[in-house]
Amino acid sequence: MTIHEIKTYKRNALINVTAEVREAVRKSGVEEGTVTVYCPHTTAGFTINENADPDVCTDLLAALEALVPKVNFRHMEGNSDAHLKASLMGASVTVPVKDGEPVLGIWQGIYFCEFDGPRNRKFYVSVNGR
Amino acid sequence: MTIHEIKTYKRNALINVTAEVREAVRKSGVEEGTVTVYCPHTTAGFTINENADPDVCTDLLAALEALVPKVNFRHMEGNSDAHLKASLMGASVTVPVKDGEPVLGIWQGIYFCEFDGPRNRKFYVSVNGR
Amino acid sequence: MTIHEIKTYKRNALINVTAEVREAVRKSGVEEGTVTVYCPHTTAGFTINENADPDVCTDLLAALEALVPKVNFRHMEGNSDAHLKASLMGASVTVPVKDGEPVLGIWQGIYFCEFDGPRNRKFYVSVNGR
Repeated sequence: MTIHEIKTYKRNALINVTAEVREAVRKSGVEEGTVTVYCPHTTAGFTINENADPDVCTDLLAALEALVPKVNFRHMEGNSDAHLKASLMGASVTVPVKDGEPVLGIWQGIYFCEFDGPRNRKFYVSVNGR
Repeated sequence: MTIHEIKTYKRNALINVTAEVREAVRKSGVEEGTVTVYCPHTTAGFTINENADPDVCTDLLAALEALVPKVNFRHMEGNSDAHLKASLMGASVTVPVKDGEPVLGIWQGIYFCEFDGPRNRKFYVSVNGR
Repeated sequence: MTIHEIKTYKRNALINVTAEVREAVRKSGVEEGTVTVYCPHTTAGFTINENADPDVCTDLLAALEALVPKVNFRHMEGNSDAHLKASLMGASVTVPVKDGEPVLGIWQGIYFCEFDGPRNRKFYVSVNGR
C-alpha cells in the first residue's frame, strides 16, 4: 500500500489522480488483481467519471450541491452537506488490474472528491493480486 | 479477468447479470476471496438490489430520475444526468466468494445500470483469492 | 470469511461495526491486503463516515430520508425508499489492510445502514491478502 498526499484549493473539487494510481499499480509489480483507492477522510471520497470534458466534473459538483436537502442539520461544524456527499460517492473505488494496468475505460478517470476544502488530504492505493 | 458484452435497449435500464457473474466465478476456480464486477463506461454503473419483484427496479430508476436536480448543466452532450446517476451507483460492486460462489443474499441480484442507452456495453468480472 | 449477526431497533439506523471488523481482520492473520464488509440484504447497506459526533449519523439519515423523491412507487411492500437508500449507500465497503489493521482514518467508522428495520440482520467480513 502506498500513501499519497494531495492539496485541495476549493471547498468542492474533483481532482484527477489517475496518473498517480497507474504509477502505483506499475510499481507494485502486480499483473492480475485489483487496485483499491481509499480516502481516509469523512468529508471527501472517490468516484470514477469522465476525464475528457471538464464540464462533466463541474456539472457533477453542481448536481451534488443541489441534491443536499434543506433539513435542519444538527452537527455543529456546519459541514453535514460534505458528510452526505462523501457517503453518496463512497470512500473508495476498486478497479480490476490486468497485464499490470488498471482496466479503466477510455473516458474514465479516478477522482478524489473534496467536499470540505481547502485542505491537505491524503489517500491510499492498495494493489492486490499476483 | 473476463470481458462480457451486453446490449441495452432503453435510455435507462437495470439488467440482471447475476447468472453471468456466478458462472465467471465458477470458471475462475477461486474458492475463497472476492469478485469485482466493473463497468468501464461513464454513463453506466453497477448496483446490487432486489431480484424478485421487477417493480423494485422500476421504482429505483424512477427515483433516480426524480433525484436529478434541475440545475443548468454545461456538458454539451446533454447527458449530465447519466453521469450523475453513474457516480451515485458507482462503477463497480464487490462481493465475497466462499466455497466457489458469490455470497449474495437470497433476494440480491447484480445489476448493470444503463443511464444513457440504448448502447452496446461491456463489463469486466475479476475474481481474486485462492 | 466470517458471518456476523446484528439486531436493529428502528426503521432507519446507522450501527457502528468497526470494532467487529477490526477483530475479524486480526483473527484472519492477513497483514497486507483488503477487507470487504458485505451486506446480503436489499434494504440495508454499508457506509464509512464520522465516528465522533453522533449528530453526523442523525444528519445523514435525515438527509437520506429527505432525498427520497415523491414518486408513485409501485413495489407493493411499501419500502421502495429503503431499496433506493440501499443502492445509494452500496452493499459493501472495502478498506485496505496494512500491518494487520484496516487503515481507517482517525475519524472514520464502518456503519451498517438499516433502512427497513427493526430486523435481525447479518453481514460478512472477507479479508484478503497475505
